[in-house]
Amino acid sequence: MPVVGMVGGGQLARMTAQAAIGLGVTFRVLAEAPDDSAALVTHDVTVGSHLSLQDVSAFASRCDVLTFDHEHVPGRVLAELESAGVLVRPGSAALRHTQDKLAMRGALTSRGVPCPRYAAVSSVADVEKFAAGSWPVVLKAVSGGYDGKGVWVCASPAEAAEVVSHGIALLAEEFVPFRRELAALVARSPSGQGAAYPVVQTVQVDGICREVIAPAPGLDPEVAAAAQALALRIASSLGVTGLLAVELFETAGGGLLVNELAMRPHNSGHWTIDGARTSQFEQHLRAVLDLPLGSCAVSGPFTVMANLLGGTDPDIYDRYIHVMAGDPAVKVHFYGKEVRPGRKIGHVTIVGDSAGDLDEVRARARRAASYLRWGTEDGD
Amino acid sequence: MPVVGMVGGGQLARMTAQAAIGLGVTFRVLAEAPDDSAALVTHDVTVGSHLSLQDVSAFASRCDVLTFDHEHVPGRVLAELESAGVLVRPGSAALRHTQDKLAMRGALTSRGVPCPRYAAVSSVADVEKFAAGSWPVVLKAVSGGYDGKGVWVCASPAEAAEVVSHGIALLAEEFVPFRRELAALVARSPSGQGAAYPVVQTVQVDGICREVIAPAPGLDPEVAAAAQALALRIASSLGVTGLLAVELFETAGGGLLVNELAMRPHNSGHWTIDGARTSQFEQHLRAVLDLPLGSCAVSGPFTVMANLLGGTDPDIYDRYIHVMAGDPAVKVHFYGKEVRPGRKIGHVTIVGDSAGDLDEVRARARRAASYLRWGTEDGD
Repeated sequence: MPVVGMVGGGQLARMTAQAAIGLGVTFRVLAEAPDDSAALVTHDVTVGSHLSLQDVSAFASRCDVLTFDHEHVPGRVLAELESAGVLVRPGSAALRHTQDKLAMRGALTSRGVPCPRYAAVSSVADVEKFAAGSWPVVLKAVSGGYDGKGVWVCASPAEAAEVVSHGIALLAEEFVPFRRELAALVARSPSGQGAAYPVVQTVQVDGICREVIAPAPGLDPEVAAAAQALALRIASSLGVTGLLAVELFETAGGGLLVNELAMRPHNSGHWTIDGARTSQFEQHLRAVLDLPLGSCAVSGPFTVMANLLGGTDPDIYDRYIHVMAGDPAVKVHFYGKEVRPGRKIGHVTIVGDSAGDLDEVRARARRAASYLRWGTEDGD
Repeated sequence: MPVVGMVGGGQLARMTAQAAIGLGVTFRVLAEAPDDSAALVTHDVTVGSHLSLQDVSAFASRCDVLTFDHEHVPGRVLAELESAGVLVRPGSAALRHTQDKLAMRGALTSRGVPCPRYAAVSSVADVEKFAAGSWPVVLKAVSGGYDGKGVWVCASPAEAAEVVSHGIALLAEEFVPFRRELAALVARSPSGQGAAYPVVQTVQVDGICREVIAPAPGLDPEVAAAAQALALRIASSLGVTGLLAVELFETAGGGLLVNELAMRPHNSGHWTIDGARTSQFEQHLRAVLDLPLGSCAVSGPFTVMANLLGGTDPDIYDRYIHVMAGDPAVKVHFYGKEVRPGRKIGHVTIVGDSAGDLDEVRARARRAASYLRWGTEDGD
């Protein structure tokens, strides 16, 4: 059996470990600490730093293919590994577009992919010039942001000045008054095969994904197909191997603009564990192993996933009984992480039985997540 | 998080480990060898003997609840653990009915559960008396049998004499000319909650389960409901905690007779990983933890599971590409076991899309299992 090594021990690696057990492929994790989410449940764990060429190389030498739980392995480390003949999937040339938002915007724009208007900025004057009197303006860290971190919506030059004062590389983007956010998740194998999941709606609160509805309710089938085609085109054009999540804005006019890219299993695809014939985690393994991709067909008319954020009580298990007794269809996924306020510590999923139940199922998923977080069904 | 300890490192423990990752409960395995199926993928593995009170006690001391991948822990070991206050689920009083077929037949018969006619036998004369001139007669080892081992269909006194000569404790059962074999899988929690999966049809070849169809096609809904009720009644009446699989004969007249019991996840329930909202492995964990049970609703109109037996080529991975390319809907489950001819090394599952496709889906599942075994689609 081939050995897949995943760099990073977070929940994505943890859920990939589950999928690897099913496929029977050997799965190894390079984790920062022995109590990382994936390290707690994986048989073969190496503790080391994803920033260290030595650590990653030593880990890679025990694997047939190397893949990632996050985008934070430095490009020079990836390039060294590739020079040494390691199968790095996705490769450094593709991953660069998740590590450098200017590179991503440049690559997409040059390929005719619709994006928000953007510019590199290094001073308040640059931001003011970009804004041309039209505020708010979005400032983003060129690298290192996630879950709303590294993104600032600035209503004025004064607010922009505050962000610029941090001294990090920034780009400015037009503020898009979107109708809603969508995500198109696709897989691409080294052989070039592609597979597309149904386009989903994502609901963010304070920059953190709180809810995913699959497929996106009421989405024009032509827009959905266009989003899938766009994601497959980006995957192919950037040479992605493995999963690619394309986060999109649906504009007031029904158009699509690319917001962000991720080249790994993605929060917008957690619903596939319970709601699709092939989970995104199995799909990622199949893609990086260059196995034929699995069916993206759904297991019900719709699936709702709600993220579970940490509250103030560390003992969420104590609340399982209430949630499970109240709703036998709720699937609880806990990541084994220490509970900290606002931290993503798990998710719940409900697969709907009939298309008309969406509002009710959304309410049930929210209630379950709220209860697990706060011990009350009507918390935030 | 509570700690569930499973005694036995086979594929049932391996698939339970997957479910434990999702629930976030801590899962430990007592395996006979470090390369046992579950030991290869579980983070916390103890190597020891399930026959040793010392080994099992030491293992249990690190767990909140103890459960089983098989029925082979001696009753005296279980009783000692219970005396020492270990939560053993299912308990020794229930498990006895899977370890001693005479005890099982006696308990079921005394509770009015329909079983084949049976008797303890210790000589050919006993068997001939039981047969009363009507052959064949089924002889079974009172304990220790599985997968067709320990069961002999004897066409004559001479064949019975051969079995009796082995010197093991035997019971005789009438040969039931069944229409087909069914299985009713239920869960029962210590609190007494019960949950029943749809009744399935199982297809055995040489005593080994080869195929499961869920739900059993064309089964009279009243018979299906009766089978579920019977299984729930047995679970309650024998005090089972965890899963109970009741293997049934559907007789020529449409009646039901209990063939065997198993008190653990069961081959007849592997389809639930892909085909039901709650897998049998998650359900078993919920039951032994006394958590409310999950929905047994199905994810498609029917699901077909085909067991994957070992062929002569040890490298089944090499054949994944053909199977996955030919049928993206096939779910491959490999147990990480060394390939030996005829050994259960995995299974494949296909969830059907529309009720009319059953024959086609069965053929696809058989083709996939055949190819993985033999490298040809029309092997046995």
